[in-house]
Amino acid sequence: RALKMSENGALPRGGKVLTVDTMNANVKKVDYAVRGPIVQRAVQIEKELKEGVKKPFEEVIKANIGDAHAMGQRPITFFRQVMALCTYPQLLDDNKFPEDAKNRARRILQSCGGNSIGAYTTSQGIECVRHDVANYIQRRDGGIPSDPDNIYLTTGASDGIVTILKLLTAGEGRTRTGVMISIPQYPLYSASIAELGAVQVNYYLNEEKCWSLDISELQRSLQAAREHCNPRVLCIINPGNPTGQVQSRQCIEDVIQFAAKENLFLMADEVYQDNVYAEGCEFHSFKKVLFEMGPEYSSKVELVSFHSTSKCYMGECGFRGGYMEVINMDPEVKAQLTKLVSVRLCPPAPGQALMDLVVNSPKPGEPSYQTFMMERTAILSALAEKAKLTEEILNTVPGIRCNPVQGAMYSFPCITLPERAINEAKAKGQAPDMFYCMKLLEETGICLVPGSGFGQREGTYHFRMTILPPTDKLKILLNKLKEFHQKFTQQYS
Amino acid sequence: RALKMSENGALPRGGKVLTVDTMNANVKKVDYAVRGPIVQRAVQIEKELKEGVKKPFEEVIKANIGDAHAMGQRPITFFRQVMALCTYPQLLDDNKFPEDAKNRARRILQSCGGNSIGAYTTSQGIECVRHDVANYIQRRDGGIPSDPDNIYLTTGASDGIVTILKLLTAGEGRTRTGVMISIPQYPLYSASIAELGAVQVNYYLNEEKCWSLDISELQRSLQAAREHCNPRVLCIINPGNPTGQVQSRQCIEDVIQFAAKENLFLMADEVYQDNVYAEGCEFHSFKKVLFEMGPEYSSKVELVSFHSTSKCYMGECGFRGGYMEVINMDPEVKAQLTKLVSVRLCPPAPGQALMDLVVNSPKPGEPSYQTFMMERTAILSALAEKAKLTEEILNTVPGIRCNPVQGAMYSFPCITLPERAINEAKAKGQAPDMFYCMKLLEETGICLVPGSGFGQREGTYHFRMTILPPTDKLKILLNKLKEFHQKFTQQYS
Ligand SMILES: Cc1ncc(COP(=O)(O)O)c(C=O)c1O
Ligand SMILES: Cc1ncc(COP(=O)(O)O)c(C=O)c1O
Repeated sequence: RALKMSENGALPRGGKVLTVDTMNANVKKVDYAVRGPIVQRAVQIEKELKEGVKKPFEEVIKANIGDAHAMGQRPITFFRQVMALCTYPQLLDDNKFPEDAKNRARRILQSCGGNSIGAYTTSQGIECVRHDVANYIQRRDGGIPSDPDNIYLTTGASDGIVTILKLLTAGEGRTRTGVMISIPQYPLYSASIAELGAVQVNYYLNEEKCWSLDISELQRSLQAAREHCNPRVLCIINPGNPTGQVQSRQCIEDVIQFAAKENLFLMADEVYQDNVYAEGCEFHSFKKVLFEMGPEYSSKVELVSFHSTSKCYMGECGFRGGYMEVINMDPEVKAQLTKLVSVRLCPPAPGQALMDLVVNSPKPGEPSYQTFMMERTAILSALAEKAKLTEEILNTVPGIRCNPVQGAMYSFPCITLPERAINEAKAKGQAPDMFYCMKLLEETGICLVPGSGFGQREGTYHFRMTILPPTDKLKILLNKLKEFHQKFTQQYS
Repeated sequence: RALKMSENGALPRGGKVLTVDTMNANVKKVDYAVRGPIVQRAVQIEKELKEGVKKPFEEVIKANIGDAHAMGQRPITFFRQVMALCTYPQLLDDNKFPEDAKNRARRILQSCGGNSIGAYTTSQGIECVRHDVANYIQRRDGGIPSDPDNIYLTTGASDGIVTILKLLTAGEGRTRTGVMISIPQYPLYSASIAELGAVQVNYYLNEEKCWSLDISELQRSLQAAREHCNPRVLCIINPGNPTGQVQSRQCIEDVIQFAAKENLFLMADEVYQDNVYAEGCEFHSFKKVLFEMGPEYSSKVELVSFHSTSKCYMGECGFRGGYMEVINMDPEVKAQLTKLVSVRLCPPAPGQALMDLVVNSPKPGEPSYQTFMMERTAILSALAEKAKLTEEILNTVPGIRCNPVQGAMYSFPCITLPERAINEAKAKGQAPDMFYCMKLLEETGICLVPGSGFGQREGTYHFRMTILPPTDKLKILLNKLKEFHQKFTQQYS
């Protein structure tokens, strides 16, 4: 049968209805480095190693993604006990499980349809979980009230972030919504902005001052954006990914003041809220600072804060648990949000249950308390140690400059690349830091993400590495990296 | 501080950045009846009952949503055993669990990062699960090959459906993508089409012929749509929601032929593939029929088929498991799809694991086989019985006409409403069947969804009820409904 012109005149290329020429143009513009070509090559190399292909290394060390369990971190016993009980309630009769785990499981199951974690939940999330989240926030923020009706459970923080960006995207041309994001950024933001057809508005973090956030830079960025779009949203990641900084209380207050003055909707990505290591640093939630600034601000500034089961000491990424708290959202918009999330029915119930355990962990006096605290502390101290180690070793390498890893799980050092390497990369059509990371991967098996995947000031080069590998492996990684960098520099000088 | 005009001139209403006037206009257009006002009222009534408010009934009976566990169906033991083992691997040493459950769990954990279900999986889904899905499809379709590279695991079928619609949405004005959906439809489709700003193109199922699908109606619908948009996609739900029909093999072949001739991308929603009850009816997958039609079709027609852990005999909605198989997708588009799904990192790992168990259930000779088969058969026979019961009782009511429930989990009877009721509803600005269902809820506690939420021919009225309540409760429900309908008819005649 001959191909036929469609009624609308276009002959589909290769006879396909859906081609890159006829697909959603916004989707085509999406870029996502964290799972990009370098990771694909790493997976390939792992397969080659398994097939016996000879390499100058024995294994691929993945420091490309904030995935704690994949790096060998053990799950928190209490969390998994409760999850097993929720999944297979026959175990509630088993005396191997502590009473507090059983009580948590019973309480969660009681709020599930038919007492099963296999039932759809309400779209906003299980009611008792939303209550526990609100209580957690209230405790965390020194008593500032939190309303369960403002809590939405999500499929990981990713889902919440995309949903709020979606609500905010409107207008055409010069009135199109602009979304201010830090550079470097976590590429979920640039990807979602591209997908929604919103306008990405960059503000640069100050690398010289440990990736802090300058209001003058926000002002510059906003002014420039107003020439061509309608910047309405300001996104902040604190503690920072990929840059590992922890913003000061003063900085957060300045940002809120700026948002109030400039009529910006605030999105605070606080998924690393327990990941603070550096002395003198502390996590301050945007919610708390907002309310401490008094009713002039707390009754007005629109804020959504995001959290997740994926990071902190839990690292339970696979469960896709998360929540967001919406503050000062217009009630009609909130109704629209509730409607929107109902289209996909509900977030995964196991992820919701796990989120519940994170915000309602064992209390002093409960049978699981000691083990829980021991496990939690061990993970967080190891991370603190690895943060320090990473900074120290990297800063001994000429041509690598690394800010302290104050929080989160990443180091984002600046690397000096020889002119010849830059030219060779450009000749290949590659970003110079991609060229560097690819070579690193091929020669050492170390998998990092090039800085160009997160954005960086023109003419500077970086990579992002996680501090998640076990300490001994991290040391090996850092020393191999050091050696590679020196060899690379020599080779191209 | 006085409200301030934004640089772009607009004074935000009530001082808010985000209002219904400045939000995403497409989101505003989204309608979602299955969790709409009637369900919200039902939840309210349940609270009132708990608080001791007197009602003419003791409990709300929810027949509004296909949520088997919420209606009292027990989970499949084997599935939950494996899920508990995956969640808390210490149980692998427990001799309470059968060996086949342990083997499944070990195999799944081995393909997880760090052997933990808490690690992110690859974005397309765990490799061994995709292999098992491909094997399942191949077995189901009598040996027609299935490639694991064409399998994408999803966060419920909902996620897959929205993702594919997103890829397909392009063009502006008259070239904007039109999506053909059946009327009545499952409102995820209309909602996603509205959200994406695509064009909804309705084709009507033939109620007189048991909700079958006439090619002449497809032709009419397509022709009309071509006047104002670019119809490129044809969605079919089989077995049908909300209409409960099972399409014949001939019908499916005709649809495929039509799609080939008219250059349409096919989306086959086959989440009810095990839910076939009526004698003489059988599930035929689009994939199988496509390949049986020979290479002229099987090498050309683009098809995506969706499946889910939420329906069939499992009813595991809360886990949000699902997969899609893409067939004849342009390789460049497939690369774009893979990139797109990677932005949200991965579907929930427990949902993926559960999907694996569905496609790799106990085999004859394995220790769990008998129990599994017993549980599965009991659920499916009860559903078949309830399908029959529903049809029979409803058809005894003058003014209710009900097609056989051949498959899925729903009956969608046509109801005759007195002129006076229609007028009273319209005076209240309500759809007449919404008026009817609201009254039913207030007077009997029965929660159904009005036909207007799914679409129906102008001037006809329906409701959708699930056949999921336990048989004794279903009988009560049907008899109460009968009584109500007679009273309602009398009252308004
Ligand atoms: C800053 C930030 N936000 C959000 C996310 C998304 O996490 P999830 O969707 O797993 O909760 C991540 C994941 O790495 C992140 O680093
Ligand atoms: C026809 C149809 N498709 C898709 C879905 C979505 O199911 P899930 O996202 O739970 O897999 C449903 C749910 O009721 C449905 O009826």
